[in-house]
Amino acid sequence: MTSAEPRTLVETKRIRLFDRTRPLDFVHGGRLEEVTVAYETYGTLNKARDNAVYICHALTGDAHAALWHEGDARPGWWDVMIGPGKAIDTNRWFVISSNLLGGCRGTTGPSDLDPATGEPYGLDFPLLDMHDFVTVHRTLMRALGVDHLHAAVGGSLGGMQVLDWSLTHPGDMDQAVVVASSSRLTAQNIAFSAVGREAIMRDENFHDGRFVVEGTSPDVGLAVARMMAHITYTSEEGFEEKFARRPQHDDRRPGFGVDFAVESYLDHQGAVFVNRFDALSYLYLTRVMDYFDPFADPTAMDAVAGTGLKYLVMSFDSDWRFGTAHSRRIVRQLQSRGLPVSFREIRAPWGHDSFLLPIGPYLDTVRAFLEQPTRPRPSIHRHRLGRHR
Amino acid sequence: MTSAEPRTLVETKRIRLFDRTRPLDFVHGGRLEEVTVAYETYGTLNKARDNAVYICHALTGDAHAALWHEGDARPGWWDVMIGPGKAIDTNRWFVISSNLLGGCRGTTGPSDLDPATGEPYGLDFPLLDMHDFVTVHRTLMRALGVDHLHAAVGGSLGGMQVLDWSLTHPGDMDQAVVVASSSRLTAQNIAFSAVGREAIMRDENFHDGRFVVEGTSPDVGLAVARMMAHITYTSEEGFEEKFARRPQHDDRRPGFGVDFAVESYLDHQGAVFVNRFDALSYLYLTRVMDYFDPFADPTAMDAVAGTGLKYLVMSFDSDWRFGTAHSRRIVRQLQSRGLPVSFREIRAPWGHDSFLLPIGPYLDTVRAFLEQPTRPRPSIHRHRLGRHR
Repeated sequence: MTSAEPRTLVETKRIRLFDRTRPLDFVHGGRLEEVTVAYETYGTLNKARDNAVYICHALTGDAHAALWHEGDARPGWWDVMIGPGKAIDTNRWFVISSNLLGGCRGTTGPSDLDPATGEPYGLDFPLLDMHDFVTVHRTLMRALGVDHLHAAVGGSLGGMQVLDWSLTHPGDMDQAVVVASSSRLTAQNIAFSAVGREAIMRDENFHDGRFVVEGTSPDVGLAVARMMAHITYTSEEGFEEKFARRPQHDDRRPGFGVDFAVESYLDHQGAVFVNRFDALSYLYLTRVMDYFDPFADPTAMDAVAGTGLKYLVMSFDSDWRFGTAHSRRIVRQLQSRGLPVSFREIRAPWGHDSFLLPIGPYLDTVRAFLEQPTRPRPSIHRHRLGRHR
Repeated sequence: MTSAEPRTLVETKRIRLFDRTRPLDFVHGGRLEEVTVAYETYGTLNKARDNAVYICHALTGDAHAALWHEGDARPGWWDVMIGPGKAIDTNRWFVISSNLLGGCRGTTGPSDLDPATGEPYGLDFPLLDMHDFVTVHRTLMRALGVDHLHAAVGGSLGGMQVLDWSLTHPGDMDQAVVVASSSRLTAQNIAFSAVGREAIMRDENFHDGRFVVEGTSPDVGLAVARMMAHITYTSEEGFEEKFARRPQHDDRRPGFGVDFAVESYLDHQGAVFVNRFDALSYLYLTRVMDYFDPFADPTAMDAVAGTGLKYLVMSFDSDWRFGTAHSRRIVRQLQSRGLPVSFREIRAPWGHDSFLLPIGPYLDTVRAFLEQPTRPRPSIHRHRLGRHR
């Protein structure tokens, strides 16, 4: 950005959405009586309350999707996509972005204190399901005065949430944007996640998930998990273009340190990550992805079929984590029940992480899709909205 | 194999190849005054001493390439390739297979005792170069009475040794077989190795490489490194065919244990590996691969050009570690200097590890190549050989 561009400041807010009178019950069992959610909003909800767009973040994202926090060195993680005049134009749309349940960036997660014990939940935190994320998203949206979304939008794990949400509660939205995502992890996908979890759980500082109480953290395992995962987020071509075999130091002498530039880059990725992410959240959130398999249920599309909910499904040709085959499977499933699906594969050499990057045809496609006229909503819905005014 | 097939027993032998009177000097500096090499041979060296085939093993291989050790549950690691009547037919060829310098399967490596200190070398073991492997192979071969090979054959890191050997000492062989190998790792290749090494070196039991003295071993790091690497040795398709999303237990309930069959498989790979491999050898041998880049030297092919040394270069279409692009690069380089190169890409769904598997067209290609008539050798060479009889 140019220095002349104004920095619009935002803050992350927190809201208690579940409490003793309204607890959160989990799909796989367990209940929490205190759930706080961190979120941000950009733009203004219009009087018809029909211009809301909900952003679902990926594995290591957070509520800070766009614009700037006071003191930020960089804007939010999807600032290329969201903002005034951007693809998700905050002059037009009211954007809601929240941190995931089980996360570590302001929303209740496994390293937060369990009010019943006064100690962190650790591995006593309930196992998570994609439906649990959707339950929390729906609750937040209504707490913000929004009954219906123009669209839900997400990449990677975010796209999974959007897909699950659209299938289970199609009345909540007119459009669903599912980018670089999957409806079913492959054995290889699961394998990479499993090795990352193994590195964390076998770290001597993991202490069966009680590391906060022990005053430590499984940083080595978490860094190794992140470094490995990061390789899978980048394409071979992207790595080659960025680093190739460039030495890190001019006077390269073989050793076991950081000899190659790509090693320095990965080291940095690992080191930064352990300072901003929690090992337990990493376990919980990756496991949700492993189990996500909505179309395994033959009734999965009964609710959405016939609603005319519009899908945009996108992939990147160099993505080898959730590549085009994953997206095509989603498209096939949705089309098999007559749902209107726009599909586009974008050429981009940066692998899975392309969904975070300023790629013109990608951003333009999202913009154009969101600007499509929406389907007429049931009159009962419009009536109900009318009462809010 | 059928139970009726006879099991030919072999033993791994060890030979002291370097000592105080003939020390081994390393390319990157350092000298060892005691180097012992573990090796096996199969078949019989003929009177002309012109039927020897040298096998170079990959990262985690050893000298036991074929046939059976007493008590073996499985034969050697390349028994599908080597044996009576097989592609490398031990009725015809005299096969030499040795464990790599720096390894941990009988040849001197970093966890062996340094005679100067009485303690394991640890990270004081000299840094290794591909040339060092070749030096030791050449010394062993001559110690076994062989001055000239019919062929050197290797897959993966083994193929790198064959390539380096053929370029630096083309007079040693008539044929070079380079399978699923590379002349230059990509940034992604290096990245995966770097994360594996990081997992090992940051394991609390690594103790700066002095773990043997400390009576421990960085098993967690080594297992994680192996599990991750193993994913890269298998194709996504291979994993999918073998495991897909099959649960490990009938009563699958989400958790952080071994829920999916692919997780159980990886766990097993890691557990078995730490019992047979040494963490320091893993560091040393992977680093050799990172640095290998023979064609970066414009004079690399000056020695081999014009010799007529015949190459067979093979790749597997599902290999995403050292895939066909790596092999094609080798082919292009060799052909640019007029060397006769046969190249074949084999269709096989099992990724990099396909080179270890019984794939008919692959084995048949190796067999046919080895059976080609060899080039006439310089008369001085034949004369010298003649004196041995």
